[in-house]
Amino acid sequence: MNTEEKSDSPLKQKLRNVIFGTETPEGKRFDIILMICIVLSVVLIFIDTIEHINEQYGQLISIAEWSFTVLFTVEYILRLYCSLNRLHYARSFFGVVDLVSILPSYLGLIFPGANVALALRVLRLFRVFRVLKLLRYLSDGHLLLKAMVQSSRKVFMFFFSVSLIIMVLSVIMYVVEGPNNGFTSIPKSMYWTVVTITTVGYGDITPQTPLGQGIAALTMLIGYSIIAIPTGILTAEISHEMVRTRDLRKCSNCGKKGHDNDAEYCNHCGSELEKL
Amino acid sequence: MNTEEKSDSPLKQKLRNVIFGTETPEGKRFDIILMICIVLSVVLIFIDTIEHINEQYGQLISIAEWSFTVLFTVEYILRLYCSLNRLHYARSFFGVVDLVSILPSYLGLIFPGANVALALRVLRLFRVFRVLKLLRYLSDGHLLLKAMVQSSRKVFMFFFSVSLIIMVLSVIMYVVEGPNNGFTSIPKSMYWTVVTITTVGYGDITPQTPLGQGIAALTMLIGYSIIAIPTGILTAEISHEMVRTRDLRKCSNCGKKGHDNDAEYCNHCGSELEKL
Amino acid sequence: MNTEEKSDSPLKQKLRNVIFGTETPEGKRFDIILMICIVLSVVLIFIDTIEHINEQYGQLISIAEWSFTVLFTVEYILRLYCSLNRLHYARSFFGVVDLVSILPSYLGLIFPGANVALALRVLRLFRVFRVLKLLRYLSDGHLLLKAMVQSSRKVFMFFFSVSLIIMVLSVIMYVVEGPNNGFTSIPKSMYWTVVTITTVGYGDITPQTPLGQGIAALTMLIGYSIIAIPTGILTAEISHEMVRTRDLRKCSNCGKKGHDNDAEYCNHCGSELEKL
Amino acid sequence: MNTEEKSDSPLKQKLRNVIFGTETPEGKRFDIILMICIVLSVVLIFIDTIEHINEQYGQLISIAEWSFTVLFTVEYILRLYCSLNRLHYARSFFGVVDLVSILPSYLGLIFPGANVALALRVLRLFRVFRVLKLLRYLSDGHLLLKAMVQSSRKVFMFFFSVSLIIMVLSVIMYVVEGPNNGFTSIPKSMYWTVVTITTVGYGDITPQTPLGQGIAALTMLIGYSIIAIPTGILTAEISHEMVRTRDLRKCSNCGKKGHDNDAEYCNHCGSELEKL
Repeated sequence: MNTEEKSDSPLKQKLRNVIFGTETPEGKRFDIILMICIVLSVVLIFIDTIEHINEQYGQLISIAEWSFTVLFTVEYILRLYCSLNRLHYARSFFGVVDLVSILPSYLGLIFPGANVALALRVLRLFRVFRVLKLLRYLSDGHLLLKAMVQSSRKVFMFFFSVSLIIMVLSVIMYVVEGPNNGFTSIPKSMYWTVVTITTVGYGDITPQTPLGQGIAALTMLIGYSIIAIPTGILTAEISHEMVRTRDLRKCSNCGKKGHDNDAEYCNHCGSELEKL
Repeated sequence: MNTEEKSDSPLKQKLRNVIFGTETPEGKRFDIILMICIVLSVVLIFIDTIEHINEQYGQLISIAEWSFTVLFTVEYILRLYCSLNRLHYARSFFGVVDLVSILPSYLGLIFPGANVALALRVLRLFRVFRVLKLLRYLSDGHLLLKAMVQSSRKVFMFFFSVSLIIMVLSVIMYVVEGPNNGFTSIPKSMYWTVVTITTVGYGDITPQTPLGQGIAALTMLIGYSIIAIPTGILTAEISHEMVRTRDLRKCSNCGKKGHDNDAEYCNHCGSELEKL
Repeated sequence: MNTEEKSDSPLKQKLRNVIFGTETPEGKRFDIILMICIVLSVVLIFIDTIEHINEQYGQLISIAEWSFTVLFTVEYILRLYCSLNRLHYARSFFGVVDLVSILPSYLGLIFPGANVALALRVLRLFRVFRVLKLLRYLSDGHLLLKAMVQSSRKVFMFFFSVSLIIMVLSVIMYVVEGPNNGFTSIPKSMYWTVVTITTVGYGDITPQTPLGQGIAALTMLIGYSIIAIPTGILTAEISHEMVRTRDLRKCSNCGKKGHDNDAEYCNHCGSELEKL
Repeated sequence: MNTEEKSDSPLKQKLRNVIFGTETPEGKRFDIILMICIVLSVVLIFIDTIEHINEQYGQLISIAEWSFTVLFTVEYILRLYCSLNRLHYARSFFGVVDLVSILPSYLGLIFPGANVALALRVLRLFRVFRVLKLLRYLSDGHLLLKAMVQSSRKVFMFFFSVSLIIMVLSVIMYVVEGPNNGFTSIPKSMYWTVVTITTVGYGDITPQTPLGQGIAALTMLIGYSIIAIPTGILTAEISHEMVRTRDLRKCSNCGKKGHDNDAEYCNHCGSELEKL
């Protein structure tokens, strides 16, 4: 990269360090300020949907909205300008997110109308995903992701069997309770079964017949016990991952392995360990 | 098996490869198409119970239903025809499922009537279990099953004590709250206790008296803490199973054991490992 | 014991083998029959509380009740008669349970009256605890109990901090929501907090103010995350217990340790292992 | 400390042993009595909010309140008097707690008025935190705390992604269900999403449209499965901590490590082990 940077104007390099840099102090400062702006803009969109707030501060919020939109537009242009490979950035996940999250406001001008506004509100939400940039400062995500990928097949197996159980139970409940007790259709009965087996239990649909209540109780106990399976799978994977990562930390001096993730010095020869 | 196959007509062998084969490409293709048909037919049965859909598209759905039934009938006959041991297939789990899942439609012609239709809807659901054939493509199920069998006795122990707790609590609540507050009988009170201890909490029956609410709070905390026990049991078993399966993976070249489930090459001598 | 048995009449010995014996076939048979009687008698008491059943079959049930009571009385007398140490049995847990579970019916004759009947119904429930005798046939309970005792202090720690959190949250919610929104008093607010933090969520009391709903959401997320702690503690203990019990299984021939709980032969020398 | 103590009056030393001592019998006795007083005073504040109790026993309670307040005041003064370093105690966590928990009653005299009383009720609650002094008698808290600190970053990661999921889902539900079905605003929709994803499920807001119910079912299954993640993380950490603490227990005689937390004698040489 250094070689390429040489070919750039010093301004561009400065900008790149500020905007894309995550190690340099000004890079960090920029990220933090940007994060605050994103969170603020999202909060604005959210509270703007509260009626009496919209009535009172509608004007202020829309002004703030626009200033944020302009800000993010400028940021996007600068990113495009100072990125080493513009197409690559424009196509990257964050590049798309950055673009999609500023478009709505402008689209709102071209196509006015309430029904459009609704759709745009969803698009605007993409701004939230910019917060993902915070992830750059977190390493543990990798371990979790690894564990989840490792256990994904087992978890799929689990959800496959759960959905079979749900289907069977919902048909039984539909037959037992019938449309008069709220189980108007099998899909509705499936909704009830999911609400019950996940132990959410809204209570908007509840079994009325003694037999139905018995089956419901059974359903709950099933849900109560199978909740253990994904936990078991993931826990086993995570602890395995943790042991492995710990083994990966090898002291460069004495070669001792198996240091804790938070260990800074080798507990055998005392020489410093490289960060995870 | 090869010896027996020789005595078959080439058509029969071809068919067998397509219908029963899971390794051959055409076998895979056949399974996938079949799966889609099954899922579609099940979805049809389910949405058919939604009134306004039944009113509008009732005709179409019943036509589709019939075509699926014919399709599955043909499949069943072909399976019977080309299976090496017909009686064995006819008696096998999937053989019975295949038969039971096509019968209802025909029974519907012989015995018409709404009350029959209801019973048939349940039988038709058997079609769902054909999806279980997918399991042939998943290996992790074995590990899970092993762990669950291993922990079954402990889990039974757990449910035995839980049911005792439920019985005691439901009698206490029945005495404390009484019929006027919805606890009309001990079985009903047991229903409430299960709803509470599994943290489902419909809210269709809730304690009204301060004492009742106190006991309810206690019940919740009990449920909250004992939810940990099955998880603990299963997790311990699964992680133990995982370690064991990992130990089973032995490099055929250098004999090193303890390879990860996703490892493809021996991390000691680099020779390829056989798949799990 | 044999020495003492000699001094007994052969009938007494025979009886003892039947009633107290758990290994002898007739002992097992007796236990199973007794179990069925106990379960039936408990079921009777339970369904007797369902009004329309009580109205229709009240006579039958009370007759059945009495016959069970007589049966259990005879059993109790026989146990007293043939036990080696009568006082010891009479004072033992099951001795007391046996007595307390037959008394109510007789007390019902001496002190008639509805208010007494209610109290007696609870006492009668003691019959349930006789089912605990089944535990004699289960060994895994020991491991679970060990793990729970091991982790009891940690779990107490946990519930201590949880109750602190509950107290703080319930006061805050009481102040925020106030009596008008159902939080009529701090104890009631505590009831709501427990309902929420254990993810039961009846919905009989729900926050109405935006601030209250915000705090409620926070409460749920707290409950959602701290649910992990007891699970973590217990899982760690159980898996530790399992490893230890596995280490305890030592081959009597080659001395190899660490056999699985379900292993029947030593995987090192092939000689049979003693059961757990 | 002994050196300083010499400079103290014997009374002061005696007092210090009683008030601050945790090993001496009178120190323990003092702590237990104090604990009972604290718990009683808190219970008083709580039940005092129940209307009919307040009406009947308001007088008694306020008297009891005042006697407790005086008692705690005396205790606070004594603590100040006999502490080796007064400023240090006054600034310590418990010092502040002790002060803040007695102030409200006095403030109530200076500034009367209902609106003040409410605020004071919250402050009075600080008395609860004095119960934390019990922690001095528990050691396992340390292990738990360690594990939680260890896993804090991973758990933060988890809550970060969960909050993202919540935001996305709540916007979708707001668009799908709309204000007419109770999803009056995105914040309200977020409240619903939290209620659903944590499997609390009050049922005060429930999806009405089929599409909404489908998304809700999805939300529940998500919540049902991600509940496994924090459990997995914490369990892995706790079991790792347990193994480590076990390794820390080293026999002073033969040097064997890896003794259980409840082991009292070295299982290798039989010499006594120091308590954890």
